[in-house]
Amino acid sequence: MPRPTPLSGFPEWLPAERIVELQVIERLRRTFEMWGFAPLETRAVEPLDQLLRKGEIDKEVYVLRRLQADPDDEGDAGLALHYDLTVPFARYVLERSGHLQFPFKRYQIQRCWRGERPQEGRYREFTQADLDVVGAGDLPFHYEAELPLVVFEAMDGLPLPPLRMQVNNRKVSQGFFRSLGLEDLGGVLRLVDKLDKIGPDRVGDALQAEAGASPAQAKAVLEFADIRAEDSSVAERVLRLGGDDPMLSEGLAELVRVVETARQNAPGRLVADLRIARGLDYYTGTVYETQLVGHEDLGSVCSGGRYDNLASSGDDRYPGVGLSVGVTRLLSRVFSKGLVTASRKVPTCVLVALPAEERRTECDQVAAGLRRRGVAAEVAPAPDKYGKQIRYADRRGIPFVWFPQDDGTHEVRDIRSGEQVPADPDSWMPPGADLHPSLTPS
Amino acid sequence: MPRPTPLSGFPEWLPAERIVELQVIERLRRTFEMWGFAPLETRAVEPLDQLLRKGEIDKEVYVLRRLQADPDDEGDAGLALHYDLTVPFARYVLERSGHLQFPFKRYQIQRCWRGERPQEGRYREFTQADLDVVGAGDLPFHYEAELPLVVFEAMDGLPLPPLRMQVNNRKVSQGFFRSLGLEDLGGVLRLVDKLDKIGPDRVGDALQAEAGASPAQAKAVLEFADIRAEDSSVAERVLRLGGDDPMLSEGLAELVRVVETARQNAPGRLVADLRIARGLDYYTGTVYETQLVGHEDLGSVCSGGRYDNLASSGDDRYPGVGLSVGVTRLLSRVFSKGLVTASRKVPTCVLVALPAEERRTECDQVAAGLRRRGVAAEVAPAPDKYGKQIRYADRRGIPFVWFPQDDGTHEVRDIRSGEQVPADPDSWMPPGADLHPSLTPS
Repeated sequence: MPRPTPLSGFPEWLPAERIVELQVIERLRRTFEMWGFAPLETRAVEPLDQLLRKGEIDKEVYVLRRLQADPDDEGDAGLALHYDLTVPFARYVLERSGHLQFPFKRYQIQRCWRGERPQEGRYREFTQADLDVVGAGDLPFHYEAELPLVVFEAMDGLPLPPLRMQVNNRKVSQGFFRSLGLEDLGGVLRLVDKLDKIGPDRVGDALQAEAGASPAQAKAVLEFADIRAEDSSVAERVLRLGGDDPMLSEGLAELVRVVETARQNAPGRLVADLRIARGLDYYTGTVYETQLVGHEDLGSVCSGGRYDNLASSGDDRYPGVGLSVGVTRLLSRVFSKGLVTASRKVPTCVLVALPAEERRTECDQVAAGLRRRGVAAEVAPAPDKYGKQIRYADRRGIPFVWFPQDDGTHEVRDIRSGEQVPADPDSWMPPGADLHPSLTPS
Repeated sequence: MPRPTPLSGFPEWLPAERIVELQVIERLRRTFEMWGFAPLETRAVEPLDQLLRKGEIDKEVYVLRRLQADPDDEGDAGLALHYDLTVPFARYVLERSGHLQFPFKRYQIQRCWRGERPQEGRYREFTQADLDVVGAGDLPFHYEAELPLVVFEAMDGLPLPPLRMQVNNRKVSQGFFRSLGLEDLGGVLRLVDKLDKIGPDRVGDALQAEAGASPAQAKAVLEFADIRAEDSSVAERVLRLGGDDPMLSEGLAELVRVVETARQNAPGRLVADLRIARGLDYYTGTVYETQLVGHEDLGSVCSGGRYDNLASSGDDRYPGVGLSVGVTRLLSRVFSKGLVTASRKVPTCVLVALPAEERRTECDQVAAGLRRRGVAAEVAPAPDKYGKQIRYADRRGIPFVWFPQDDGTHEVRDIRSGEQVPADPDSWMPPGADLHPSLTPS
């Protein structure tokens, strides 16, 4: 076969990069579990009509077809790959509600697919790490203030630039727009969402041309969308613009609680930013977006919000709130800018050198003893000259090479310093920092 | 929306089952890493022509199509979901060979898709855990004896029925058939592969009718395929049937080494079984299949073999050997027969009870302190009566409920025994066995 080439939009990492990705995912997983979120995965496919139910992204969906579909077996007709983990989770909750305990807290780390035109940070196949809480019938508000803390705690354990989260609340936006006398609340929200792309002048014009706003209303909307604050002053600034609406009051109280909770527990990480709208139409309360500081051009690396109506069937409603970390987007920037590197390309801590093929069993036993103590170890592939065996370790970043001596004793060399010392195969341990590959910011 | 129903062939686990699956995957991952296998994932899609290159399963492949494909962007036309992890790995090795160090040892735990008719142990979406070693140009034989030990070590750490692996070698089968004077070696192999399904009588007939065997040749093939041995006697038994062929001799020496290595390191786990053929046509040396003892009807839960020609381009050849654990197949049986259960449905070890909503901050601090010591903890969703809060814990299997007292002291109750004792929020730790969910054989 001819040598294959990469497929645009379907990133694949090298082993050293996968080590970084795994440690990021493990950190997220452990933190989510510390906060009591249960692990979950859903199938990769959903019925197409379910995926299209929420509109907006129909052209980006990948539909499946069996190469030789069997007309008498339609069990997998009309299936498509999921484009996020929220819609499948809502479906799962409805399907399995009788087996779940509510409020149900789960995390889900899986790949998603969208047929978008690829660019940095935007892929056709990508991994998301989601956490959500859903209630049966109702869901206490405090989870909306808690979720950002979970993500901050997870990411603070990684050698990455800090996060900065922008938060708004749909009730604040819609309540304010309504209090101005505007009617097309969805249309106004969609135009506000374009502020970063097309700027305030064109949004102001569009508010008048497309959303029925007067010049004064458009001006008020732009002033509103310009408000940013890291504390309860956000509410005072909105009320100073006028506006009197029960939904606005409720939303402001919620927004203040989210901002103040973050200010006490993770100061400097979260800001109320009233231009945040989020494209997807199922949010009903708090909405979140997150920048990696210094890499704002990458777009949001952690987004989500409160949704009251995503999972409902007849009289059963399961309101929820969720956040989704864009693992692939984050890592694409980490790798393209070399922000973090793994200390080695393999898990191996010790390469046991092989003096002669006849001595493989003896070498295997040394390696097995190391593994029993939790030290990743492998034996050299062949009894090459020691220079070549050391190169095997060096190219992979394996820090130690173990030499069985002819007299039955053993020595181990730190190939970074060249220091070689006698070692007991039944008790030797590497320094803790060398036990596993580590991540270093660069 | 109407309440959704499951899709046949696309299994989804409940959270308590996902806890079991995660612990199985973590055990595999850790063991693979202890032996020096590097982590890797590949994209879920391959060009269709690559997947069809190895024939045989073309009707089972899922092809992708964007719902509204863009005629000027054909970057994702002709893509299909991978049906195993070996073919994508071979493609990855060819594509990235300049960035890899050989011999290259990697593991890969990912989902695969096949449009097969679903039945127990056979799914349309399933997770495989693969480990492979590939060399550049050549690959030392000893890895073929080593891989089974890695899998045995991984699975021995889990509370599951033991594995029993059957091993053969393509060189043994083909060398023996050739020494008999048979010519259609592939045809004979495919018929031997049907022994378990259609029995020796019908295979004997077919050998004569379809593969050009004489009655004596067919009898010799059946006698050969009946040989099973756990030690080097396998070679003597084959040679007693006659047969003199250099490929046969080489294969027998290899087979004996695989069997003897297992006998010394994992006695009773591996048997030479000369009826093992493996359907896929790319194997060239050792082939493996594995039964879960007492669940042989499930089919093989760990298969693989040596392949010399899967990854090659021009003069560059990357021979390899691999094993693939069928995680979903294994777990489907674990769950349908209740072989293993998780001690709880959530990671949470401690539920901090909430005396009143005004005291949430104080309770959050208790939970945060527990988490800092590695104890998964969450605060009750609402200040309900304590009976209801204890039920929240009980339904999820959370073992401890923490009660902040009105006088500033604290107590913790083991809700399994009902014992409630004073506890210091800055130092209390649960018994080690309760720290994380554990798996129990049932």
